[in-house]
Amino acid sequence: MKILFSPFSPYVRKCLVTAHELGLDQRIQLLPSNANPVQRDQQIIRDNPLGKVPTFYTDDGQVLYDSRVICEYLNDLAGGTLFPASGAKRWETLTLQSLGDGILDGALIARYEDVARPEPLRWPEWRAAQLDKAETSLAHLNARPELLEGRVDIGAIAVGCALWYLDLRFADFGWRDRHPAVARWFAAFGERPSMQANWSL
Amino acid sequence: MKILFSPFSPYVRKCLVTAHELGLDQRIQLLPSNANPVQRDQQIIRDNPLGKVPTFYTDDGQVLYDSRVICEYLNDLAGGTLFPASGAKRWETLTLQSLGDGILDGALIARYEDVARPEPLRWPEWRAAQLDKAETSLAHLNARPELLEGRVDIGAIAVGCALWYLDLRFADFGWRDRHPAVARWFAAFGERPSMQANWSL
Repeated sequence: MKILFSPFSPYVRKCLVTAHELGLDQRIQLLPSNANPVQRDQQIIRDNPLGKVPTFYTDDGQVLYDSRVICEYLNDLAGGTLFPASGAKRWETLTLQSLGDGILDGALIARYEDVARPEPLRWPEWRAAQLDKAETSLAHLNARPELLEGRVDIGAIAVGCALWYLDLRFADFGWRDRHPAVARWFAAFGERPSMQANWSL
Repeated sequence: MKILFSPFSPYVRKCLVTAHELGLDQRIQLLPSNANPVQRDQQIIRDNPLGKVPTFYTDDGQVLYDSRVICEYLNDLAGGTLFPASGAKRWETLTLQSLGDGILDGALIARYEDVARPEPLRWPEWRAAQLDKAETSLAHLNARPELLEGRVDIGAIAVGCALWYLDLRFADFGWRDRHPAVARWFAAFGERPSMQANWSL
């Protein structure tokens, strides 16, 4: 299997953390990529016309994207339990994944505002509203610690990767003081080998 | 069942088209919402801390988001065939959904650039790159008409709703001339009662 890789893409990382939890990450070859939101990478576009990473290649030649599809594929391949197969637990887990991904979507837009957009064209209220998605989401989780405690599934992985990215790109966001229950959870979850792993080309 | 509704949200529409295909749309109550990317709606945030629509309420009290989770829940509830249960067909269908959703994500960002961001802060290259995701995606589909022909599933619905939104908000995008096979497909698929339906509060 192969994946178009970028070391700081939180969605690539989400796929690799998932693969690690499933014991599959050593079977995935990392391919270099130059995904960029403005200078679109024509090589990625040949396989994934959205021009984004992660883009994933199965051993039987399917091209899969985005991270949600790739992670569920990997779970299915490994016969894993990161995606409950059915019932209320499935919808609850997938909604938690949406929450983690939604934090990331906002954080990525804020990041583009900070580093891609020319400085005179930046709009602070927009950036603040995007990061506020993380703030209200972490408040939601902090008030419901049972949503995170003890779980190892795609919901926890998505939230964990979102927190990893916040720490990477928005170190001054300082969420731990305001959301101590989430901080306690992440202090433990972040110690998992899958979360500690580092991948590079 | 209930859904936080906005008439011009393509992701709300995707959920309702899916519900219509499954014969469920009349069982879903539409609730008013004021989702806004900058002035975040605190009422939505109480249930969905991302503050986005669609947000969905099951009859047994679960809150589900985003559209991918809601659509799969509805398909499961109806015992539908819009999501293949397993195998290569499942991953292919989910990847096509990702493609449709990816077109929409880019189009929504371009739309915010056009109408939300103050005019002096707009960045034409950014807007163009976001809409170019639609262009390269439609070129991809146009070169592979077998990807769309004859299918009625979440992949086709996602692409159909993306085209609906392009026509709604970017009438001058003029994609039909450049992608005639996609245009032919949409001329037929867009006639389905689910795609012709209109929902309002």
